[in-house]
Amino acid sequence: MTGVRCAIAQLNVTIGDVEANVARMVAAAETAASEQAQLVIFSEMSVTGYLPGDLLDEPAFLKRANEGVEVLRETSRRFADQHWVIGAPLSHDGPGKGLHNALIVLHRGEQVLSYAKQLLPSYNVFNEHRYFDSGPDIAAVLSIAGHRVGFLICEDGWNDETGAAYLTNPLERLRTAAPDIVISINASPSSIGKREDRHRTFAAASARSGAPIVYVNQVGGHDQLVYDGASFVADPTDGIVFEARRFDEDVTTLSLLAEGSLLTGTGGGGGAGSVASGLDRPEFYRRQIVLGLQDYARRCGFAKAVVGSSGGIDSALTVALAVEALGHDNVSAVTMPSRFSSAGSVDDSVELCRNLGVVLHTHPIVDLVDTFVARFESSFGQPIGGLALQNLQARIRGTILMEYSNQFGHLLLTTGNKSELSVGYCTLYGDTNGGLSLIGDLYKTEVFELCRHLNVAADRVVVPVTIIEKEPSAELAPDQRDTDSLPPYPVLDEILKVLIEGEHLGEIERADAVAFVADLGSTEEGRILVDRVRRMIWTSEYKRRQAPPIIRVRSRAFGAGRQMPIAARYG
Amino acid sequence: MTGVRCAIAQLNVTIGDVEANVARMVAAAETAASEQAQLVIFSEMSVTGYLPGDLLDEPAFLKRANEGVEVLRETSRRFADQHWVIGAPLSHDGPGKGLHNALIVLHRGEQVLSYAKQLLPSYNVFNEHRYFDSGPDIAAVLSIAGHRVGFLICEDGWNDETGAAYLTNPLERLRTAAPDIVISINASPSSIGKREDRHRTFAAASARSGAPIVYVNQVGGHDQLVYDGASFVADPTDGIVFEARRFDEDVTTLSLLAEGSLLTGTGGGGGAGSVASGLDRPEFYRRQIVLGLQDYARRCGFAKAVVGSSGGIDSALTVALAVEALGHDNVSAVTMPSRFSSAGSVDDSVELCRNLGVVLHTHPIVDLVDTFVARFESSFGQPIGGLALQNLQARIRGTILMEYSNQFGHLLLTTGNKSELSVGYCTLYGDTNGGLSLIGDLYKTEVFELCRHLNVAADRVVVPVTIIEKEPSAELAPDQRDTDSLPPYPVLDEILKVLIEGEHLGEIERADAVAFVADLGSTEEGRILVDRVRRMIWTSEYKRRQAPPIIRVRSRAFGAGRQMPIAARYG
Repeated sequence: MTGVRCAIAQLNVTIGDVEANVARMVAAAETAASEQAQLVIFSEMSVTGYLPGDLLDEPAFLKRANEGVEVLRETSRRFADQHWVIGAPLSHDGPGKGLHNALIVLHRGEQVLSYAKQLLPSYNVFNEHRYFDSGPDIAAVLSIAGHRVGFLICEDGWNDETGAAYLTNPLERLRTAAPDIVISINASPSSIGKREDRHRTFAAASARSGAPIVYVNQVGGHDQLVYDGASFVADPTDGIVFEARRFDEDVTTLSLLAEGSLLTGTGGGGGAGSVASGLDRPEFYRRQIVLGLQDYARRCGFAKAVVGSSGGIDSALTVALAVEALGHDNVSAVTMPSRFSSAGSVDDSVELCRNLGVVLHTHPIVDLVDTFVARFESSFGQPIGGLALQNLQARIRGTILMEYSNQFGHLLLTTGNKSELSVGYCTLYGDTNGGLSLIGDLYKTEVFELCRHLNVAADRVVVPVTIIEKEPSAELAPDQRDTDSLPPYPVLDEILKVLIEGEHLGEIERADAVAFVADLGSTEEGRILVDRVRRMIWTSEYKRRQAPPIIRVRSRAFGAGRQMPIAARYG
Repeated sequence: MTGVRCAIAQLNVTIGDVEANVARMVAAAETAASEQAQLVIFSEMSVTGYLPGDLLDEPAFLKRANEGVEVLRETSRRFADQHWVIGAPLSHDGPGKGLHNALIVLHRGEQVLSYAKQLLPSYNVFNEHRYFDSGPDIAAVLSIAGHRVGFLICEDGWNDETGAAYLTNPLERLRTAAPDIVISINASPSSIGKREDRHRTFAAASARSGAPIVYVNQVGGHDQLVYDGASFVADPTDGIVFEARRFDEDVTTLSLLAEGSLLTGTGGGGGAGSVASGLDRPEFYRRQIVLGLQDYARRCGFAKAVVGSSGGIDSALTVALAVEALGHDNVSAVTMPSRFSSAGSVDDSVELCRNLGVVLHTHPIVDLVDTFVARFESSFGQPIGGLALQNLQARIRGTILMEYSNQFGHLLLTTGNKSELSVGYCTLYGDTNGGLSLIGDLYKTEVFELCRHLNVAADRVVVPVTIIEKEPSAELAPDQRDTDSLPPYPVLDEILKVLIEGEHLGEIERADAVAFVADLGSTEEGRILVDRVRRMIWTSEYKRRQAPPIIRVRSRAFGAGRQMPIAARYG
């Protein structure tokens, strides 16, 4: 039996940049042509990038997207042996919003099939009901190279296991049409465990269908979301038999449905038939964040970044990840000692920057604090103190970092972690300043874990041991320790996992955290602590509302994934 | 024919505060009992407030909401003559998310009807598909006091005119059941023209149905959204025959379906049968903003507010509106003159604060600027200049205002207008600082209009004429004028209306703005200007992402109503 040669075109498209995306798609088709591909499969919304947000409301943008599809249709004449599977917004006559999230098959200058996504995810970071209407409950099948090829878009494949999330099951509908192979185009952002969820879900779906499923994903960073690529092929009997590169583009052509060997092909992910094992947690975080920063900086026009280096572990990790993403010549650090900074803090920053080959600027803030304090008293008639004085120091530092950013054109990276941001242990317009947060979705315990991992992976000291081992302190008051205001992080983080992520946690993590918090709840003191943390989360919502985009690495990150009111009463 | 006595219970419920909301509802039922009400109608999601956002994902919150419904059900035994129509989230067995946005009728301790909202708005500021499943396409009708009463929830009534927005039309379905009267419970946030849209839509629907429609709305401010109340009755022949108070609570009992006179009753909106005329545009803005601030401050626990007073018109308007909302004793202003501040600016702040009875603090920033400038050069090896120096001044001021806010517990109000925020003519972590923006949805030309209106309405000078008449300047550089960087505001604002609001504009406003921009497009210079403004909007998205909640007064406000990517290419 003659197979069909499928090219998985896993591209890093840019949201909104239709012209560049189309050029990228045509270049991938050229590559695939050299491998005798018959089917070239691009990701969901590949023409516009996923997701253009409210650009989809603008007629001028939709016109541009349509023009992109037209260019591809015309260009497909030059690739007479290929069928192209592309993703784009497609207008319809209603009723409804008049727009579908569509899959279009192009062949020899003709649009030979179009299929509208049926299941529109509206949860966590997704809000497709804002833009699209659900497509009709039909099976889209096309005969290509003598095989019946069936088509799905992303969420369409996720109601197959339990049927619990939506009223319809497009994969079951497709099954009734008995395709030889199923093509699924996707824009699936990655978070810890997501790749494994995809493998499990689609391997099971393939087994139920008796047909292989080719899953093609977008790759790249878009604001807070990172798409890991990692496109794959699920086989009815052998499970996941191929995986494309993770966190990088990949154009790989495979022979599917061929006699004998299921898969042959070249390039990508260690070659056809080989599937790399999963990344462990800290390595996943590292790769996800590095790509997220690279693409954010590139797309916003920044080559360089600046980080405030406190000598603490959060800023150390941020500097290290920035260096990996942008190169050490493109990262600057600034240490801004105050009266409360320990000598060790500056020394630790010096050592960190030496280890990483990063320029460290020193900008003391003592006289700025003194001038603000003196003027405050003369203007407002009382000395400034307490939290107001602590916040002042953070805001002076935030202002200095923005001076640097504005003067030299560096992207300022904010350094807070998820534990701090959860309970509001941070200063708005101070240490929260920045265009992007690299580690704002990592709990403090995970920040330690990732620093240790970086040192092990580099087989040398990148993050100084003194930074990893010292007790966390904001150093905004004499002898201050984080534990003056917060429970120890190993305790806090388990509480936060339950209160913030709950059902979104992975199975093992959830079991552990729930058991931990249940155990706390067995004492009055423990119950008081959990309630206190709940209140801290609730009353600091206003700070998170003004935070920069946070690169998402866990299933439920602050930002679009957690939408809470501010002026409300709960908890 | 004996009528039915309907109480419109238009309440200012607090999101999340189920216990307090339930108490408020019971108190309203007491009031209605004294008016012999047979039907007491509360707003959509009245038990939880609309909308609790991701609290709806938390089992503990849903449990609390259910307990609230249970308390109401039990309490309804005490009101044996009344049927209560309440709104609450209601769990169901799926498939889907397992939650409905429900209307429940309670009577003598029984739940006698429940109806699930069919049309779930997911556009502009709404995202109900995130939380709810659509209810089945059915008509909910109950016999009360000998009349057939039909029920709808908010969006359910909006597909009746053209049938274009959704596949189904719940109002048409209800019509087939021939109810004598239709009850619609709502949470409809107000924006300019919205009240008139509601009147038009439901008067037409009532005429088509031949039955009166009682429309009950939520009132109050919730972060960026303000609900104006303005509940009403639409009559099949006479149109809008009753309107409840605007921007305030109202519990009014009316006799409907009675022989002879359609309506009798007491209280609210000038009394039964009388409908006040609409507010003109500036007066609408004023009432909307004042209620928005009052409720935001109250719910966040602030009694007092502070505003940076530059001597310009934006801060003057913000101070004036804050005084109206909170009282002059509860508002402080701070003037922070720099080397570039004109003498007039401080004088104008003095006069403004004298007119309003507000304390004005003076906090010069000259020496702070000098210290930052000197330290910058010694730390980074070059003098700071250009935009970086301008931003620095704004950030010093933002820091001083936050010192004040933190030390004295005042809510800081940011002062930017929609024109500035659209094109990024503002300093992030500087003048954008604040917990709430009062005038961030008003174009600059509207800021002038509202200031003039306040003076006319007060019949005295509130905002000094010098402030209204001087040329706008940020005063961050010598002899600076806004027109150095921007087109004149009457030009800019028309361009912005088209580019930002487009189809969301009211008919007349759209026609004017579109014609203006088309006219600009007739010259090369005009086309270049429009393109430049488009780019300015696009490249300043990152600033808006970190802005505080902006009280929405126009149909399309920044915030949830306009969701644009940052790291993208378009325009």
